[in-house]
Amino acid sequence: MDEANLLDVSPDEVETVLEHFERETVEGRTYRRLPDARHGVERGTVLIDDTAVRGFPSIPRALVLETGIPTFFSGPLAVEEKLNGYNVRIANVGEPLAFSRGGIVCPFTTPKARELLDLEAFFADHPEKMLSAEFIGPENPYTAHEYPEVSSLGVRVFDVRDRVTGRPLPVRERRDLLSEYGFPQPELFGIPEPDRAVAVVRDVIDDLDDRGREGVVMQSTDGRDLLKYTTGTQHADDLAFAFSLPFDYGRDFIFSRLIREGFQAVEFEESDAELRERAHRIGESLLFPMVETIRDVRAGATVGERHTVRASPETVAATLDHLRDQGIRLEIESDRTIDDQRVVEFVKVTDKTRDSIEYYLEGGTIDE
Amino acid sequence: MDEANLLDVSPDEVETVLEHFERETVEGRTYRRLPDARHGVERGTVLIDDTAVRGFPSIPRALVLETGIPTFFSGPLAVEEKLNGYNVRIANVGEPLAFSRGGIVCPFTTPKARELLDLEAFFADHPEKMLSAEFIGPENPYTAHEYPEVSSLGVRVFDVRDRVTGRPLPVRERRDLLSEYGFPQPELFGIPEPDRAVAVVRDVIDDLDDRGREGVVMQSTDGRDLLKYTTGTQHADDLAFAFSLPFDYGRDFIFSRLIREGFQAVEFEESDAELRERAHRIGESLLFPMVETIRDVRAGATVGERHTVRASPETVAATLDHLRDQGIRLEIESDRTIDDQRVVEFVKVTDKTRDSIEYYLEGGTIDE
Repeated sequence: MDEANLLDVSPDEVETVLEHFERETVEGRTYRRLPDARHGVERGTVLIDDTAVRGFPSIPRALVLETGIPTFFSGPLAVEEKLNGYNVRIANVGEPLAFSRGGIVCPFTTPKARELLDLEAFFADHPEKMLSAEFIGPENPYTAHEYPEVSSLGVRVFDVRDRVTGRPLPVRERRDLLSEYGFPQPELFGIPEPDRAVAVVRDVIDDLDDRGREGVVMQSTDGRDLLKYTTGTQHADDLAFAFSLPFDYGRDFIFSRLIREGFQAVEFEESDAELRERAHRIGESLLFPMVETIRDVRAGATVGERHTVRASPETVAATLDHLRDQGIRLEIESDRTIDDQRVVEFVKVTDKTRDSIEYYLEGGTIDE
Repeated sequence: MDEANLLDVSPDEVETVLEHFERETVEGRTYRRLPDARHGVERGTVLIDDTAVRGFPSIPRALVLETGIPTFFSGPLAVEEKLNGYNVRIANVGEPLAFSRGGIVCPFTTPKARELLDLEAFFADHPEKMLSAEFIGPENPYTAHEYPEVSSLGVRVFDVRDRVTGRPLPVRERRDLLSEYGFPQPELFGIPEPDRAVAVVRDVIDDLDDRGREGVVMQSTDGRDLLKYTTGTQHADDLAFAFSLPFDYGRDFIFSRLIREGFQAVEFEESDAELRERAHRIGESLLFPMVETIRDVRAGATVGERHTVRASPETVAATLDHLRDQGIRLEIESDRTIDDQRVVEFVKVTDKTRDSIEYYLEGGTIDE
């Protein structure tokens, strides 16, 4: 197996890179995954049998559209919706598998992807490609977010690349190809020329913000340069999530979201009343969930991330095992069977938040 | 010089501790200071000539009064006001010098302390003691905060210890002693028994909060166990300061202040309306100063910490030199002489905030 060639790293470096790969198994098969980006190889890159599944590149973010767009793009840019779910890469390595951002085969998403997408037809024609897909909706084990158009779990395929090189298809070609197979895609809001792009994106963001949605991904028409930008609603949602479990997520989330809000408030040149409204939304996102969680701990309730999964009994069992194997402690809140589907509501218990809150509630002090 | 004995560390450890001391000079005299706590020796501990000036211990903080007070104290506790300024230790080492928290002799505070306090009389009677004093008011080079009772600079002596051992005087003895010399002190709100202390402190905090003041220090009557607690107004002020210079201070300040707010909101069992008001105050503290600073940078204005000093021309010159010697870049905004006093308004320029904001305003992206 010529890993240097597969991963496109120099023969000198390949040993160093390979040292960082971790060994995993899926149904008796062994594969290796790269948990963090190294030497130009993306996080989540997988080596399996004699092939690679390249990680999805991290997408840079603009804080100011007016200057960020013209600085980043020199030609027309496609503006597509960024959805708030979790994304996987789907590649046919003997069979189609769904790999998480970190390169782990997901036992929930793999069968769901096969149900929701005609992968057999697609991979028969395009065996060397990989799909990047966002899974959205209230019923999944990772990111619960309500979309009016999704009752349980939906999928939006947002990218097609060569699985080994990671080279993307151009935007129009990608969208046409995905349409052929009937794959749902994120909305395309237009492909404006650079001089109109800022205005287009501003309008789209205003509208998405009003509708409580996340934001946009902009990209050059060849699919190679990607840039993201998100709504104030999304920042507030992120803060509310983080401060519902403050000692687990608060520290990591807060600064970046507040900075986004600061620049967005300045760029959107809001009236004093609008600025105040944004400030109040930020404050409520931080305080209300935190107070609720402290009260929950005081009352002895379980705190953690609540999720619901709905799937075949085999898939649900495999999913719960998989989460437990990753060291996550689960508390099952309900477990029913509806139309042959097992529906489980559970909490990923977050000990750090509970333990810290208990410590302070019992009179613990902080040394500063 | 027997440093092990002076510092009260074992002979085995003394070399290790001494390695962390840094050499400084003041008017030709050399002294050593400990920039961070090590092996039980407090931050800011100073070795000068053949004596030591022990650092002030860091005071733990309660997040919940109802449980924190009875857990921490087993007898009556003195409740005194905690003021929002900067504090120094004043010791007579040949002459009275004011040492910062980190153990640096302050060329602004040393002459101010001599003006504002009759140090000659005090140290004639108590050569081995040190005073801990908070300097408050709008005109100083460190922490500008308005107090209605202070027009330029005031001082409140809040602690008296043996300078070498760091052993404090009992509260009543300390307050009586300081009264004898006419030294201003922080307000004493009472010395309640433990069963009444929570209610007393709650009332005091409510009142201080309404008046925009910082909080309280509680201590056992022997002066040995200290505990602090602060008002919501103070948390909001801290956040507003930090987010006026977000890339310099935002990250360090935010999490701890929000957590304090969360527990305080829960303990004070506020109505929904009061909770919302607190949330809005938090949001405004974060967003408004940040937006103002981003707008300032966009307009090309200097950003940084604004301070005013008013003192003799010699003291002002020494103060500005001292700040510059510490690597702080100053921009002088006004420089006047009023009644023989030189009054300088200046900005400590914070390059990190300005540079980061400029980068994003010019279209820079963040890789996430």
